[in-house]
Amino acid sequence: MYDLIIIGGGPAGLTAAIYAVRYGLDTVVLEKNVVSGQIATAQRVENYPGFPSISGMELMQNFKVHAEQAGVIIQNTNVSSVRDEGGKKVVISDDGELEGLALIVATGANPKRLGVAGESELLTKGVSYCATCDGPFFAGQEVIVVGGGDSAITDALILADIADKVYVIHRRDELRACSLLQKRAFGKENISFIWDTAVQEIKGRDLVEKVVLKNLKTDDITEMKIDGVFIYVGIDPNTSMVDVDKTDVGFIRTDERLKSSVDGIFAAGDCRRTSVWQVVTAVSDGAVAAISAHEYITSLKSDN
Amino acid sequence: MYDLIIIGGGPAGLTAAIYAVRYGLDTVVLEKNVVSGQIATAQRVENYPGFPSISGMELMQNFKVHAEQAGVIIQNTNVSSVRDEGGKKVVISDDGELEGLALIVATGANPKRLGVAGESELLTKGVSYCATCDGPFFAGQEVIVVGGGDSAITDALILADIADKVYVIHRRDELRACSLLQKRAFGKENISFIWDTAVQEIKGRDLVEKVVLKNLKTDDITEMKIDGVFIYVGIDPNTSMVDVDKTDVGFIRTDERLKSSVDGIFAAGDCRRTSVWQVVTAVSDGAVAAISAHEYITSLKSDN
Repeated sequence: MYDLIIIGGGPAGLTAAIYAVRYGLDTVVLEKNVVSGQIATAQRVENYPGFPSISGMELMQNFKVHAEQAGVIIQNTNVSSVRDEGGKKVVISDDGELEGLALIVATGANPKRLGVAGESELLTKGVSYCATCDGPFFAGQEVIVVGGGDSAITDALILADIADKVYVIHRRDELRACSLLQKRAFGKENISFIWDTAVQEIKGRDLVEKVVLKNLKTDDITEMKIDGVFIYVGIDPNTSMVDVDKTDVGFIRTDERLKSSVDGIFAAGDCRRTSVWQVVTAVSDGAVAAISAHEYITSLKSDN
Repeated sequence: MYDLIIIGGGPAGLTAAIYAVRYGLDTVVLEKNVVSGQIATAQRVENYPGFPSISGMELMQNFKVHAEQAGVIIQNTNVSSVRDEGGKKVVISDDGELEGLALIVATGANPKRLGVAGESELLTKGVSYCATCDGPFFAGQEVIVVGGGDSAITDALILADIADKVYVIHRRDELRACSLLQKRAFGKENISFIWDTAVQEIKGRDLVEKVVLKNLKTDDITEMKIDGVFIYVGIDPNTSMVDVDKTDVGFIRTDERLKSSVDGIFAAGDCRRTSVWQVVTAVSDGAVAAISAHEYITSLKSDN
């Protein structure tokens, strides 16, 4: 029986593990990939303090080396479900069942893909899902934002302060974003809106060069030269394995100490309900979840 | 007029600045020291992911290099007060008045000193104010914890899982800590309590070797061999320059987006009311405060 099982070996999970082993907790991290974390797919990360410019893969490898040097055990396995037995949590994985006194869910989230040709191929080469992360690479350039919700318009506003020109491409003829964001976006000189339009393909050799657009009312197809494509059509948290209180789309609800609705189950990083998805917030979450889990485990042990 | 003025160049302030310049905000960091941050005084930092083991000074220098490479301007000056003029914040510094649309307070906090001989000299050489930070360096050793409040007992429990033996030294004959923490501490085999006693001196050449204790009831003086001294006699946030809602001891109250009680003034890191004082939580705070400040500044500009 472990003290603590951490599901997910991205920035949140590995930081939780570093803190946990420093507290003397018998800890295991379960991770299905060799190197994990949404951030591992980023070409350059320039906003994790201490590393002015580093690839996402390299940053995650640094995190992994750090965790392993601290004594963290990482087991490569896929978790299918979790069974809560009160003072014991049972994790069902491809390697069988593992038991722990407490559990931290740090399974991350994935931005939904448009699912068009060129999107995967040009990821990190002009295709992005996060203006805060990648916006600065497009200074003085022209970009499109795909989507019409709060995330799309928030990031269009961020991009408008960095890029020369931002086109918001939306399938409908009005935005879903809140009226305040709409007002700000409509007031920005360098944001234009292309309504009733879908992106059909993203083209480019080494970098994004153009997008193929389809007008959904007229079926007209046009090509548009562009430097960057920012996509906001939703985000999928990887939380189906655990039965705790979640938002409609599956983000785990926590209190500020990162406790979920179930005693002894904590959540950290992108899989929990939060408004910021950054490496710095994920590592912070990892530490806070480990501190809370340590307190919980100490209380369990002292009460028995 | 700046878009954003950040007071404090520790982990929170520099991270806020890195995020702010990436958003295209005209930003300045005001810092009175050449290298700042409580963490700069740490001999080894082993829980900031990506750096398995680094001195606090070196870590802060990395942060500073990163910030400067990102285009952050750091001005070395001391801030005495802040005047809120609604849509404009005026910062009064030794260099005169500076004006910004928004303000992030990231001024940190300092643990209170006992004020005994040897304390400053042996800081980072066995004297510490944080078990989560420095506990693991005392594996298998004997330490004292000075204090009787929640922080002291929380950290005594952390240390008990790492060190061989923990002595809690307290001036009174009962603890101030909450009853739950007391119960756990009293139940730990390797925690002992030395009541009615004050530390008079900390002795050691290169590392802490012993403490001189005075029994406050009998005035007896004794020496005790010890490897580490953890001190919890309070914490002083550096927030006197700014007039916002604070706790009794001066921590700035914020919402989860790190807004203070005054529009356009945000707080990040150790100076705000939080339960965790770590580099990872400070950098996270910095990012969140910058994101909130950017939204605030965007709304100010679009409304004018």
